[in-house]
Amino acid sequence: MTDSRIASLQQACPGLKLKTDPADLEHYGRDWTRRWTPAPLAIALPATVEEVQAVMRWSAGEGVAVVPSGGRTGLSGGAVAANGELVLSLERMNKALAYDAVDRTLVVQAGMPLEALHNAALDHGLIYPVDFAARGSCTIGGNIATNAGGIRVIRYGNTREWIAGLKVVTASGELLELNKGLIKNSSGYDFRQLLIGSEGTLGVIVEATVKLTDPPPASNVMLLALPSFEVLMQVFAAFRARLQLQAFEFFTDRALEHVLAHGAQAPFDEVHPYYVVTEFAANDEAQEAAAMAAFEDCMGNGWVSDGVISASDAQAAQLWRLREGITESLARYKPYKNDVSVRISAMPAFLAETQALIGQAYPHFDVVWFGHIGDGNLHINVLKPDDTSDADFVAQCEQVTKLLAQVLARFDGSISAEHGIGLVKNGYLDSTRGPAEIALMKAVKRAFDPQARLNPGKLFDV
Amino acid sequence: MTDSRIASLQQACPGLKLKTDPADLEHYGRDWTRRWTPAPLAIALPATVEEVQAVMRWSAGEGVAVVPSGGRTGLSGGAVAANGELVLSLERMNKALAYDAVDRTLVVQAGMPLEALHNAALDHGLIYPVDFAARGSCTIGGNIATNAGGIRVIRYGNTREWIAGLKVVTASGELLELNKGLIKNSSGYDFRQLLIGSEGTLGVIVEATVKLTDPPPASNVMLLALPSFEVLMQVFAAFRARLQLQAFEFFTDRALEHVLAHGAQAPFDEVHPYYVVTEFAANDEAQEAAAMAAFEDCMGNGWVSDGVISASDAQAAQLWRLREGITESLARYKPYKNDVSVRISAMPAFLAETQALIGQAYPHFDVVWFGHIGDGNLHINVLKPDDTSDADFVAQCEQVTKLLAQVLARFDGSISAEHGIGLVKNGYLDSTRGPAEIALMKAVKRAFDPQARLNPGKLFDV
Repeated sequence: MTDSRIASLQQACPGLKLKTDPADLEHYGRDWTRRWTPAPLAIALPATVEEVQAVMRWSAGEGVAVVPSGGRTGLSGGAVAANGELVLSLERMNKALAYDAVDRTLVVQAGMPLEALHNAALDHGLIYPVDFAARGSCTIGGNIATNAGGIRVIRYGNTREWIAGLKVVTASGELLELNKGLIKNSSGYDFRQLLIGSEGTLGVIVEATVKLTDPPPASNVMLLALPSFEVLMQVFAAFRARLQLQAFEFFTDRALEHVLAHGAQAPFDEVHPYYVVTEFAANDEAQEAAAMAAFEDCMGNGWVSDGVISASDAQAAQLWRLREGITESLARYKPYKNDVSVRISAMPAFLAETQALIGQAYPHFDVVWFGHIGDGNLHINVLKPDDTSDADFVAQCEQVTKLLAQVLARFDGSISAEHGIGLVKNGYLDSTRGPAEIALMKAVKRAFDPQARLNPGKLFDV
Repeated sequence: MTDSRIASLQQACPGLKLKTDPADLEHYGRDWTRRWTPAPLAIALPATVEEVQAVMRWSAGEGVAVVPSGGRTGLSGGAVAANGELVLSLERMNKALAYDAVDRTLVVQAGMPLEALHNAALDHGLIYPVDFAARGSCTIGGNIATNAGGIRVIRYGNTREWIAGLKVVTASGELLELNKGLIKNSSGYDFRQLLIGSEGTLGVIVEATVKLTDPPPASNVMLLALPSFEVLMQVFAAFRARLQLQAFEFFTDRALEHVLAHGAQAPFDEVHPYYVVTEFAANDEAQEAAAMAAFEDCMGNGWVSDGVISASDAQAAQLWRLREGITESLARYKPYKNDVSVRISAMPAFLAETQALIGQAYPHFDVVWFGHIGDGNLHINVLKPDDTSDADFVAQCEQVTKLLAQVLARFDGSISAEHGIGLVKNGYLDSTRGPAEIALMKAVKRAFDPQARLNPGKLFDV
């Protein structure tokens, strides 16, 4: 507590809650990536927009960099503070501020956990439909900063579609009120859209007006066993043509093994190489008949070997657990994660080429595949063998990512579908974005943050 | 043709089609606003992306400003060339380039008219759902540059929701390929979103990947007669609660009079002060019963005085003509147009205050009201009396717009819901956007276009 900059921060913002214990620096200084050693200057936990503004003005005066921080569930190092930055945690700004039944919007503070937002929407008989496994810990501010996707994108789109307004504190401490909940507003550049997915590099998101919608009709969950990788897109097409899909998620036998070892119950007597969990509207007989027709079509074509459909909410949750439990079940292996996307139409050729590359490149590593196949989004998790050092393991994986980035560039794909670039992928940004685009990104960064104090090193070095 | 800059353009881009006749300069130098005298240097009509790039490189070398130009149906002067600019018309780049059935996308050149895009989508059994009266003349490039809204926003959103990728030529002639049709792409700033609605000030949109969707279920169109302005939002709420609305459009008796004088058929024997045209899904008996229930609820409450429901597609078209014919029927009166929006929840109070302001401010002018009330978007058209000069008329209207802008600022509304800022409204931008936001908009403009050669004077002066 003897650092003069901390004293000046306390003077600049007298009521501000600060943490400087080593355990807090460690806790708040990193996200779910474990590659960097946390080394923040301190942790600021403001309670109001005004305190956030005061922090940013202090940052401008002292030249101290700031890392905006939500639930720190990110997988790309976007919330890591390893270079003496001030971590600006939004966790105390976690409340719903206003609901409007006519606009069907909820105004929330950025630090509200996603699950709390889900519950707040349900209190009004509506839903906030973006969803994924980290819901209990991640925050809406972090979701917006990375344009989070998840398991319902096929039906509801990414976070971007659900944000009607944003309040953002700039690098110099000014408050921007972006779009203000309007449906139509053609009055110049839509900075709300620019801030969504900007990974804390352009401003600190402090408040959001989120759109809510009607709960979906009753749905069924189906687990399908597939005999090969090649039929995956045919199964997807057969189901998409007949049903209103709410999710279509894929994983391999290796993924299932880890989830089962973690305590889940085996869905089939036999082992199959590939699985799909899909959820679809099923609120009348016609829809249930369509689901059976899709299933039988796939069985008849040999694309599906077995299947089970949920007969209750409890069984639906059990089937979902097989997919949603994957990330947690892999955590102890410190997995190296690729999170890539291509257009759905490019998926079959891309999957074939990627499978060949990965098979050849990682002969000795356990590789677990899963993903949101209906969005063109594939997750590849490479598990670290116990006898390989962290550094060696990452170095070997990075060699493969370089090759994967080349494949992606040929397929017009993205090196980051939904995790963001952060620190983990900024060396690969140029496989997805052209040099003129990257130069303009840096120019826009300078326009918003000329001293590069906001989340420095994330996305790119300016 | 003796201007040395035109000679240098022909040398820089030998095959480029150019027009320099006075009639062409007049025709291409303005949009549907009639407030400025066209005075472009010349009209370039490139046929390829490479020619657009060559034009922009020439522009950089010669320091000549460029006005990107689509169908020039804009109502805010966004496509006006009144200061020796080169007009860059995309009208020859008007083709569909590729359809993908799996992605459900169509790649089109920017100069494709909206109606041609509608038809191209229907050729594949799908729809492009953004729609409005200028469909025959406006182009998808112009629609994107203004994030066009129209009559289906309540169901399908604005143009922004339907753009999966953009190709854009920058001020320096570089080609940006933005998002490339991906559903998920969290790899830095989404410049696709920034370009949408940027009114030609950040780059020239040359190509778009548009999303298509299933045709809507069978629908009915209903025309409602309302006894007063105050009940409008109640009628909207009653219909929205029961029906899947595809449109909910409002207009006044004064608007109807002009459309009838233009040849349309009167819908009712009696004259009513206010009308609503609404379209909603009606593909089964339950939905038709819900529509009747909504109507009877409104009649019972005295919110609706009369109504007619379409019994055929022809009658539906006839009812729609009453709303869609308004703009054309007013054109000869050189209307001064306000195009404003607030949140739906703010609409009742805003309408009351605006009606009082307009009634007081324009005692002698014919004022025609209509709008997309379900999106919070109101159009106010003030008709020029024959005995008032153009300049006097605009000057008087601008006095009222200043007051209206103050009302909007208090209601967190927008001075431009869907027409854009252009030249017409750049004096009022600060009623909708704060000073820090406008400063950042100018900084972003400088990042993209440091010499301010792209559509100068539009949105703001840099």
